[in-house]
Amino acid sequence: MIAQHELQIRTSGRGTYDISREVQDFVRESGISTGVCQVFIRHTSASLMLCENADPAVLRDMEAFMSRTVPDGDPIFTHTAEGPDDMPAHVRSVLTQSDLNLPVRDGRCSLGTWQGIFLWEHRVAPHSRRVVITVQGA
Amino acid sequence: MIAQHELQIRTSGRGTYDISREVQDFVRESGISTGVCQVFIRHTSASLMLCENADPAVLRDMEAFMSRTVPDGDPIFTHTAEGPDDMPAHVRSVLTQSDLNLPVRDGRCSLGTWQGIFLWEHRVAPHSRRVVITVQGA
Amino acid sequence: MIAQHELQIRTSGRGTYDISREVQDFVRESGISTGVCQVFIRHTSASLMLCENADPAVLRDMEAFMSRTVPDGDPIFTHTAEGPDDMPAHVRSVLTQSDLNLPVRDGRCSLGTWQGIFLWEHRVAPHSRRVVITVQGA
Repeated sequence: MIAQHELQIRTSGRGTYDISREVQDFVRESGISTGVCQVFIRHTSASLMLCENADPAVLRDMEAFMSRTVPDGDPIFTHTAEGPDDMPAHVRSVLTQSDLNLPVRDGRCSLGTWQGIFLWEHRVAPHSRRVVITVQGA
Repeated sequence: MIAQHELQIRTSGRGTYDISREVQDFVRESGISTGVCQVFIRHTSASLMLCENADPAVLRDMEAFMSRTVPDGDPIFTHTAEGPDDMPAHVRSVLTQSDLNLPVRDGRCSLGTWQGIFLWEHRVAPHSRRVVITVQGA
Repeated sequence: MIAQHELQIRTSGRGTYDISREVQDFVRESGISTGVCQVFIRHTSASLMLCENADPAVLRDMEAFMSRTVPDGDPIFTHTAEGPDDMPAHVRSVLTQSDLNLPVRDGRCSLGTWQGIFLWEHRVAPHSRRVVITVQGA
Protein backbone atom coordinates (compact mmCIF):
# COMPACT_ATOMS: atom_id res chain seq x y z
CA MET A 1 0.00 0.00 0.00
CA ILE A 2 1.03 3.55 -0.65
CA ALA A 3 -0.45 6.92 0.32
CA GLN A 4 0.79 10.39 -0.56
CA HIS A 5 -0.25 13.86 0.49
CA GLU A 6 1.07 17.41 0.17
CA LEU A 7 0.87 19.78 3.12
CA GLN A 8 1.10 23.52 2.74
CA ILE A 9 2.55 25.29 5.76
CA ARG A 10 2.57 29.04 6.14
CA THR A 11 5.45 30.23 8.25
CA SER A 12 5.74 33.59 9.97
CA GLY A 13 9.48 33.73 9.29
CA ARG A 14 12.57 32.18 10.80
CA GLY A 15 11.86 29.60 13.45
CA THR A 16 10.65 26.06 14.05
CA TYR A 17 7.14 24.73 13.46
CA ASP A 18 5.99 21.43 14.95
CA ILE A 19 4.29 19.35 12.23
CA SER A 20 4.19 16.06 14.18
CA ARG A 21 0.41 16.04 14.44
CA GLU A 22 -0.13 16.63 10.72
CA VAL A 23 2.27 13.78 9.88
CA GLN A 24 0.79 11.35 12.44
CA ASP A 25 -2.75 12.21 11.28
CA PHE A 26 -1.90 11.36 7.69
CA VAL A 27 -0.25 8.08 8.67
CA ARG A 28 -3.36 7.08 10.62
CA GLU A 29 -5.64 8.02 7.72
CA SER A 30 -3.49 5.98 5.33
CA GLY A 31 -4.49 2.77 7.12
CA ILE A 32 -0.91 1.49 6.84
CA SER A 33 0.14 -0.41 9.94
CA THR A 34 3.79 -1.32 9.30
CA GLY A 35 6.17 0.48 6.96
CA VAL A 36 7.98 3.77 6.44
CA CYS A 37 6.70 7.35 6.41
CA GLN A 38 8.73 9.76 4.31
CA VAL A 39 8.50 13.51 4.84
CA PHE A 40 10.07 15.75 2.19
CA ILE A 41 10.34 19.54 1.90
CA ARG A 42 10.32 20.97 -1.62
CA HIS A 43 12.58 23.94 -0.82
CA THR A 44 16.24 24.73 -0.30
CA SER A 45 15.89 27.55 2.23
CA ALA A 46 13.78 25.69 4.81
CA SER A 47 14.40 22.20 6.16
CA LEU A 48 13.19 19.41 8.42
CA MET A 49 14.45 18.36 11.82
CA LEU A 50 13.72 15.75 14.46
CA CYS A 51 14.29 17.47 17.80
CA GLU A 52 13.47 17.33 21.49
CA ASN A 53 9.93 18.63 21.88
CA ALA A 54 9.53 19.13 25.63
CA ASP A 55 11.55 22.23 26.54
CA PRO A 56 11.20 25.23 24.18
CA ALA A 57 14.70 26.31 25.24
CA VAL A 58 16.10 23.46 23.13
CA LEU A 59 14.65 25.00 19.96
CA ARG A 60 15.91 28.45 20.92
CA ASP A 61 19.39 27.08 21.61
CA MET A 62 19.32 25.23 18.28
CA GLU A 63 18.56 28.50 16.51
CA ALA A 64 21.28 30.31 18.48
CA PHE A 65 23.84 27.68 17.52
CA MET A 66 22.88 27.81 13.85
CA SER A 67 22.87 31.63 13.77
CA ARG A 68 26.39 31.67 15.13
CA THR A 69 27.67 28.89 12.85
CA VAL A 70 26.09 30.29 9.67
CA PRO A 71 25.74 34.01 10.33
CA ASP A 72 23.50 36.20 8.20
CA GLY A 73 25.51 38.62 6.07
CA ASP A 74 28.69 36.57 6.34
CA PRO A 75 31.18 38.25 3.95
CA ILE A 76 32.24 34.82 2.67
CA PHE A 77 28.98 34.67 0.69
CA THR A 78 28.61 36.16 -2.81
CA HIS A 79 25.00 35.02 -3.48
CA THR A 80 23.47 38.03 -1.75
CA ALA A 81 20.89 39.40 -4.22
CA GLU A 82 17.97 37.94 -2.23
CA GLY A 83 19.17 39.32 1.08
CA PRO A 84 21.69 38.55 3.86
CA ASP A 85 19.64 35.57 5.13
CA ASP A 86 19.29 33.77 1.79
CA MET A 87 22.63 32.01 1.39
CA PRO A 88 22.71 31.16 5.13
CA ALA A 89 19.26 29.58 4.62
CA HIS A 90 20.68 27.32 1.89
CA VAL A 91 23.62 26.30 4.09
CA ARG A 92 21.37 25.62 7.09
CA SER A 93 19.20 23.43 4.87
CA VAL A 94 22.21 21.42 3.71
CA LEU A 95 23.46 20.96 7.30
CA THR A 96 20.06 19.66 8.42
CA GLN A 97 17.53 17.54 6.46
CA SER A 98 15.33 17.86 3.40
CA ASP A 99 13.84 14.43 4.02
CA LEU A 100 12.97 12.52 7.16
CA ASN A 101 12.17 8.82 7.10
CA LEU A 102 10.28 7.38 10.03
CA PRO A 103 9.34 3.79 10.79
CA VAL A 104 5.60 3.13 10.94
CA ARG A 105 4.57 0.62 13.58
CA ASP A 106 1.07 -0.13 14.86
CA GLY A 107 -0.31 2.51 12.51
CA ARG A 108 1.80 5.46 13.59
CA CYS A 109 5.32 6.87 13.28
CA SER A 110 7.30 5.12 15.96
CA LEU A 111 9.00 8.21 17.37
CA GLY A 112 10.78 8.30 20.69
CA THR A 113 9.02 9.95 23.62
CA TRP A 114 10.78 13.28 23.13
CA GLN A 115 11.03 13.34 19.33
CA GLY A 116 9.05 15.98 17.47
CA ILE A 117 8.96 16.60 13.73
CA PHE A 118 9.78 20.22 12.92
CA LEU A 119 9.82 22.36 9.85
CA TRP A 120 12.65 24.86 10.24
CA GLU A 121 12.07 28.08 8.34
CA HIS A 122 15.46 29.68 7.70
CA ARG A 123 14.32 32.82 5.89
CA VAL A 124 13.49 35.87 7.98
CA ALA A 125 10.33 36.70 5.99
CA PRO A 126 7.16 34.56 6.09
CA HIS A 127 6.91 31.87 3.42
CA SER A 128 4.51 29.23 2.20
CA ARG A 129 6.21 25.82 2.30
CA ARG A 130 5.17 22.58 0.64
CA VAL A 131 5.87 19.27 2.33
CA VAL A 132 5.14 15.88 0.72
CA ILE A 133 4.32 12.91 2.95
CA THR A 134 4.57 9.41 1.45
CA VAL A 135 3.66 6.31 3.46
CA GLN A 136 4.55 2.84 2.19
CA GLY A 137 3.89 -0.47 3.87
CA ALA A 138 1.25 -3.01 4.71
CA MET B 1 7.49 -7.74 1.64
CA ILE B 2 8.25 -5.89 4.82
CA ALA B 3 10.17 -6.77 7.98
CA GLN B 4 10.69 -4.68 11.10
CA HIS B 5 12.76 -5.14 14.22
CA GLU B 6 13.84 -3.06 17.21
CA LEU B 7 17.39 -3.29 18.51
CA GLN B 8 18.36 -2.22 21.98
CA ILE B 9 21.92 -0.99 22.28
CA ARG B 10 23.59 -0.26 25.59
CA THR B 11 26.27 2.38 25.25
CA SER B 12 29.06 3.04 27.70
CA GLY B 13 28.84 6.79 27.07
CA ARG B 14 30.04 9.16 24.38
CA GLY B 15 31.54 7.44 21.38
CA THR B 16 30.75 5.42 18.29
CA TYR B 17 29.37 1.87 18.16
CA ASP B 18 29.50 -0.21 14.99
CA ILE B 19 26.07 -1.78 14.37
CA SER B 20 26.75 -2.92 10.79
CA ARG B 21 26.59 -6.59 11.69
CA GLU B 22 23.26 -6.31 13.53
CA VAL B 23 21.75 -4.47 10.54
CA GLN B 24 23.13 -6.86 7.94
CA ASP B 25 22.00 -9.86 9.99
CA PHE B 26 18.43 -8.58 10.11
CA VAL B 27 18.38 -7.86 6.37
CA ARG B 28 19.54 -11.41 5.68
CA GLU B 29 16.92 -12.88 8.03
CA SER B 30 14.20 -10.80 6.34
CA GLY B 31 14.65 -12.76 3.12
CA ILE B 32 14.32 -9.56 1.11
CA SER B 33 16.64 -9.51 -1.88
CA THR B 34 16.11 -6.08 -3.46
CA GLY B 35 14.79 -2.99 -1.70
CA VAL B 36 15.64 -0.47 0.99
CA CYS B 37 16.73 -0.92 4.61
CA GLN B 38 15.81 1.90 6.91
CA VAL B 39 17.58 2.39 10.25
CA PHE B 40 16.06 4.85 12.71
CA ILE B 41 17.12 5.96 16.20
CA ARG B 42 14.34 6.90 18.61
CA HIS B 43 16.35 9.54 20.48
CA THR B 44 17.48 13.15 20.08
CA SER B 45 20.78 12.92 21.95
CA ALA B 46 22.31 10.04 20.01
CA SER B 47 22.43 9.65 16.23
CA LEU B 48 23.44 7.48 13.31
CA MET B 49 26.38 7.84 10.95
CA LEU B 50 27.86 6.12 7.93
CA CYS B 51 31.62 6.41 8.30
CA GLU B 52 34.92 4.94 7.23
CA ASN B 53 35.37 1.73 9.23
CA ALA B 54 39.01 0.76 8.61
CA ASP B 55 41.15 3.19 10.63
CA PRO B 56 39.97 3.91 14.21
CA ALA B 57 41.68 7.31 13.95
CA VAL B 58 38.87 8.45 11.63
CA LEU B 59 36.30 7.95 14.39
CA ARG B 60 38.52 9.70 16.93
CA ASP B 61 39.04 12.64 14.57
CA MET B 62 35.29 12.80 13.93
CA GLU B 63 34.70 13.08 17.67
CA ALA B 64 37.44 15.72 17.99
CA PHE B 65 35.89 17.80 15.23
CA MET B 66 32.41 17.57 16.73
CA SER B 67 33.66 18.38 20.25
CA ARG B 68 35.30 21.54 18.95
CA THR B 69 32.34 22.58 16.78
CA VAL B 70 29.71 21.94 19.47
CA PRO B 71 31.58 22.28 22.77
CA ASP B 72 30.12 20.98 26.02
CA GLY B 73 29.18 23.79 28.36
CA ASP B 74 29.03 26.39 25.57
CA PRO B 75 27.65 29.57 27.22
CA ILE B 76 25.38 30.09 24.20
CA PHE B 77 23.14 27.29 25.53
CA THR B 78 20.36 27.89 28.07
CA HIS B 79 18.98 24.31 28.19
CA THR B 80 21.48 23.16 30.81
CA ALA B 81 19.40 21.44 33.49
CA GLU B 82 20.43 17.98 32.30
CA GLY B 83 24.14 18.80 32.21
CA PRO B 84 26.70 20.53 29.99
CA ASP B 85 26.64 17.71 27.41
CA ASP B 86 22.86 17.59 26.90
CA MET B 87 22.23 20.50 24.55
CA PRO B 88 25.42 19.71 22.57
CA ALA B 89 24.03 16.17 22.19
CA HIS B 90 20.86 17.56 20.60
CA VAL B 91 22.86 19.76 18.22
CA ARG B 92 25.20 16.90 17.25
CA SER B 93 22.14 14.76 16.50
CA VAL B 94 20.67 17.43 14.24
CA LEU B 95 23.99 17.87 12.39
CA THR B 96 24.23 14.13 11.73
CA GLN B 97 21.40 11.61 11.07
CA SER B 98 18.45 10.12 12.90
CA ASP B 99 17.69 7.86 9.96
CA LEU B 100 19.86 6.03 7.45
CA ASN B 101 18.43 4.51 4.29
CA LEU B 102 20.46 1.85 2.56
CA PRO B 103 19.83 0.05 -0.70
CA VAL B 104 19.37 -3.71 -0.37
CA ARG B 105 20.85 -5.72 -3.23
CA ASP B 106 21.43 -9.47 -3.39
CA GLY B 107 20.01 -9.82 0.11
CA ARG B 108 22.26 -7.36 1.91
CA CYS B 109 22.82 -3.61 2.37
CA SER B 110 24.91 -2.56 -0.57
CA LEU B 111 27.47 -0.54 1.36
CA GLY B 112 30.77 0.58 -0.04
CA THR B 113 33.90 -1.30 0.99
CA TRP B 114 34.76 1.18 3.72
CA GLN B 115 31.29 2.14 4.90
CA GLY B 116 30.28 1.12 8.40
CA ILE B 117 26.99 1.87 10.17
CA PHE B 118 27.59 3.54 13.52
CA LEU B 119 25.46 4.61 16.43
CA TRP B 120 26.98 7.78 17.84
CA GLU B 121 26.28 8.26 21.54
CA HIS B 122 26.57 11.96 22.31
CA ARG B 123 25.86 11.87 26.06
CA VAL B 124 28.79 11.33 28.40
CA ALA B 125 26.90 8.84 30.59
CA PRO B 126 25.94 5.32 29.43
CA HIS B 127 22.48 5.02 27.88
CA SER B 128 20.19 2.36 26.48
CA ARG B 129 19.27 3.25 22.89
CA ARG B 130 16.49 1.87 20.72
CA VAL B 131 16.99 1.54 16.98
CA VAL B 132 14.23 0.41 14.59
CA ILE B 133 15.20 -1.41 11.38
CA THR B 134 12.60 -1.64 8.59
CA VAL B 135 13.32 -3.53 5.36
CA GLN B 136 11.00 -3.18 2.37
CA GLY B 137 11.33 -4.82 -1.01
CA ALA B 138 10.97 -8.05 -2.91
CA MET C 1 7.11 -2.45 -7.91
CA ILE C 2 10.81 -1.93 -7.41
CA ALA C 3 13.63 -0.87 -9.70
CA GLN C 4 17.31 -0.51 -8.91
CA HIS C 5 20.27 0.82 -10.84
CA GLU C 6 23.88 1.74 -10.16
CA LEU C 7 25.38 4.86 -11.69
CA GLN C 8 29.08 5.39 -12.05
CA ILE C 9 30.14 9.02 -11.96
CA ARG C 10 33.65 10.16 -12.75
CA THR C 11 34.53 13.36 -10.94
CA SER C 12 37.33 15.73 -11.83
CA GLY C 13 38.02 16.44 -8.16
CA ARG C 14 36.46 18.58 -5.45
CA GLY C 15 33.22 20.21 -6.47
CA THR C 16 29.55 19.59 -7.15
CA TYR C 17 28.06 17.52 -9.99
CA ASP C 18 24.39 17.79 -10.94
CA ILE C 19 22.93 14.29 -11.27
CA SER C 20 19.25 15.34 -11.38
CA ARG C 21 18.79 14.25 -14.97
CA GLU C 22 20.27 10.78 -14.40
CA VAL C 23 17.98 10.26 -11.41
CA GLN C 24 14.85 11.55 -13.14
CA ASP C 25 15.61 9.46 -16.23
CA PHE C 26 15.81 6.29 -14.17
CA VAL C 27 12.57 7.07 -12.32
CA ARG C 28 10.81 7.55 -15.66
CA GLU C 29 12.23 4.30 -17.04
CA SER C 30 11.10 2.43 -13.92
CA GLY C 31 7.47 3.05 -14.82
CA ILE C 32 6.65 3.78 -11.17
CA SER C 33 4.12 6.56 -10.81
CA THR C 34 3.79 7.07 -7.03
CA GLY C 35 6.38 6.15 -4.43
CA VAL C 36 9.86 6.99 -3.19
CA CYS C 37 13.19 7.28 -5.01
CA GLN C 38 16.22 6.57 -2.92
CA VAL C 39 19.68 7.77 -3.97
CA PHE C 40 22.68 6.37 -2.10
CA ILE C 41 26.41 6.98 -2.44
CA ARG C 42 28.70 4.07 -1.63
CA HIS C 43 31.58 6.22 -0.33
CA THR C 44 32.57 8.13 2.80
CA SER C 45 34.58 10.91 1.15
CA ALA C 46 31.90 12.15 -1.27
CA SER C 47 28.28 12.86 -0.48
CA LEU C 48 24.88 13.90 -1.82
CA MET C 49 23.11 17.24 -1.51
CA LEU C 50 19.85 18.85 -2.53
CA CYS C 51 20.69 22.46 -3.34
CA GLU C 52 19.49 25.50 -5.21
CA ASN C 53 20.28 24.90 -8.88
CA ALA C 54 19.75 28.29 -10.53
CA ASP C 55 22.69 30.49 -9.49
CA PRO C 56 26.14 28.85 -9.63
CA ALA C 57 27.25 31.27 -6.91
CA VAL C 58 25.22 29.22 -4.41
CA LEU C 59 27.36 26.16 -5.05
CA ARG C 60 30.56 28.20 -4.83
CA ASP C 61 29.42 29.74 -1.54
CA MET C 62 28.50 26.29 -0.22
CA GLU C 63 32.03 25.10 -0.98
CA ALA C 64 33.53 28.24 0.61
CA PHE C 65 31.51 27.69 3.77
CA MET C 66 32.49 24.04 4.00
CA SER C 67 36.18 24.75 3.31
CA ARG C 68 36.23 27.23 6.17
CA THR C 69 34.29 24.99 8.58
CA VAL C 70 36.31 21.84 7.83
CA PRO C 71 39.69 23.12 6.62
CA ASP C 72 42.11 20.86 4.81
CA GLY C 73 45.18 20.11 6.89
CA ASP C 74 43.46 21.02 10.17
CA PRO C 75 45.98 20.07 12.92
CA ILE C 76 43.10 18.54 14.93
CA PHE C 77 43.15 15.57 12.53
CA THR C 78 45.45 12.57 13.00
CA HIS C 79 44.16 10.45 10.07
CA THR C 80 46.46 12.13 7.55
CA ALA C 81 48.14 9.27 5.68
CA GLU C 82 45.94 9.75 2.61
CA GLY C 83 46.52 13.50 2.44
CA PRO C 84 45.31 16.73 4.03
CA ASP C 85 41.92 16.56 2.28
CA ASP C 86 41.02 13.00 3.33
CA MET C 87 39.78 13.43 6.89
CA PRO C 88 37.99 16.69 5.95
CA ALA C 89 36.26 14.69 3.20
CA HIS C 90 34.94 12.23 5.79
CA VAL C 91 33.69 15.05 8.02
CA ARG C 92 32.02 16.86 5.11
CA SER C 93 30.27 13.61 4.18
CA VAL C 94 28.95 13.17 7.71
CA LEU C 95 27.70 16.79 7.82
CA THR C 96 25.81 16.35 4.53
CA GLN C 97 24.04 13.24 3.18
CA SER C 98 24.93 9.75 2.03
CA ASP C 99 21.31 9.06 1.09
CA LEU C 100 18.56 11.23 -0.37
CA ASN C 101 14.95 10.10 -0.40
CA LEU C 102 12.62 11.82 -2.82
CA PRO C 103 8.87 11.43 -3.28
CA VAL C 104 7.84 10.14 -6.69
CA ARG C 105 4.62 11.66 -8.02
CA ASP C 106 3.23 11.46 -11.53
CA GLY C 107 6.22 9.37 -12.58
CA ARG C 108 8.98 11.72 -11.49
CA CYS C 109 10.77 12.97 -8.37
CA SER C 110 8.60 15.73 -7.04
CA LEU C 111 11.37 18.26 -6.45
CA GLY C 112 10.78 21.93 -5.84
CA THR C 113 11.39 24.35 -8.69
CA TRP C 114 14.90 25.20 -7.50
CA GLN C 115 15.99 21.85 -6.10
CA GLY C 116 18.80 20.02 -7.86
CA ILE C 117 20.37 16.69 -6.89
CA PHE C 118 24.13 17.02 -6.55
CA LEU C 119 26.99 14.68 -5.94
CA TRP C 120 29.57 16.54 -3.87
CA GLU C 121 33.12 15.29 -4.42
CA HIS C 122 35.15 16.21 -1.35
CA ARG C 123 38.54 14.82 -2.42
CA VAL C 124 40.83 17.09 -4.41
CA ALA C 125 41.81 14.34 -6.87
CA PRO C 126 39.41 12.90 -9.47
CA HIS C 127 37.52 9.80 -8.36
CA SER C 128 35.05 7.29 -9.75
CA ARG C 129 31.93 7.25 -7.57
CA ARG C 130 29.15 4.69 -7.44
CA VAL C 131 25.59 5.77 -6.71
CA VAL C 132 22.69 3.32 -6.26
CA ILE C 133 19.17 4.45 -7.18
CA THR C 134 16.23 2.43 -5.83
CA VAL C 135 12.64 3.30 -6.74
CA GLN C 136 9.73 1.70 -4.88
CA GLY C 137 6.03 2.30 -5.40
CA ALA C 138 3.11 1.63 -7.67
